[in-house]
Amino acid sequence: MKIILIGGQGTIGKRVAAALAPRHELIIAGRNSGDIQVDIASETSIENMFSQLKTVDACICTAGTGYYGDFQTMRQQHMLAGITGKLMGQVNLVLIGKQYLSEGGSFTLTSGIAAEHPAKNGTTVAMINGAVNSFVLGAAQELKRDQRINVVSPGLVEDSKDRYGAMFPGYNLVPMDKLVNAYLLSVEGAVNGKIIKVYS
Amino acid sequence: MKIILIGGQGTIGKRVAAALAPRHELIIAGRNSGDIQVDIASETSIENMFSQLKTVDACICTAGTGYYGDFQTMRQQHMLAGITGKLMGQVNLVLIGKQYLSEGGSFTLTSGIAAEHPAKNGTTVAMINGAVNSFVLGAAQELKRDQRINVVSPGLVEDSKDRYGAMFPGYNLVPMDKLVNAYLLSVEGAVNGKIIKVYS
Repeated sequence: MKIILIGGQGTIGKRVAAALAPRHELIIAGRNSGDIQVDIASETSIENMFSQLKTVDACICTAGTGYYGDFQTMRQQHMLAGITGKLMGQVNLVLIGKQYLSEGGSFTLTSGIAAEHPAKNGTTVAMINGAVNSFVLGAAQELKRDQRINVVSPGLVEDSKDRYGAMFPGYNLVPMDKLVNAYLLSVEGAVNGKIIKVYS
Repeated sequence: MKIILIGGQGTIGKRVAAALAPRHELIIAGRNSGDIQVDIASETSIENMFSQLKTVDACICTAGTGYYGDFQTMRQQHMLAGITGKLMGQVNLVLIGKQYLSEGGSFTLTSGIAAEHPAKNGTTVAMINGAVNSFVLGAAQELKRDQRINVVSPGLVEDSKDRYGAMFPGYNLVPMDKLVNAYLLSVEGAVNGKIIKVYS
């Protein structure tokens, strides 16, 4: 398969890339790095990326974050980067990319455990993840030409333990190979419209 | 209780208003009607509303809709009104309103069945409802002074049968009194952080 992986140099993306690279034509997209550049917060940039790729058999997105911070002082402005990036960025990858996705191709987006179990200070991320999950349920019913879409919802992943562990007391660590399997299930399997939860 | 009900002249809002009015000081807010005017798509307008009210014991929002339309031609621009209105409008009611909400007061937002079971053409609404649900899970953990927050997630309500029924084949009609009870549970009860699903 010809696979575009957006965010392929991030914590999750590089593990997914390592699993897919041996048996697929893998193209890594990043904002400033990778094989091709894309800013998913821009519809134009997404359109440019896909028009360069011409066609892909799978589109995976592991990019995008959201605001963590004190709820008492949180305002809309703190939430916007996550909304335009992780939320609408992923939505736009689908709305624009479906024209470039081959028959039977798949989208695999990324949300996170916060949709159901937000950590302290994580209300923005909760909102974004919940939105991505429900978007996928809708989109799965609408895609044509046997295209599929799923979303992987990771918990606190092992590789983020040092960087983010202190923000998530009581969250079980997700082994990276279990997380990678969720992406393989979506890309190489046959599931459609699934929120693939990998919480521990 | 002194209760502000945003959207109190809509299909759901007027039923909720009828149930609350006999035993509370009910203030109806609408964009162009009601006792006080507010455009929930504007932070300034929300701030103005609350500063006029000074304090409230409960804030209920039954306002806001989202785009229904063909997924194949749907683009970000179609989604924006729902994002700034039903999603960020309700979020901003909480972020701004919590300063004006009394100790032990409650927020009650409105999402919808599309978060879990989107209808055809309803992917935007699915996304918005999923976002509101997850926002509430996060916010419930963060509110201070014993404030509570819940979200009512209605299915296809009886009073919308003529107007919207054809868009939702196979959806059970929700009796209006069951739906109203969900709002009463949130406002007059003790629950917190609940997605109160009223699907049939």
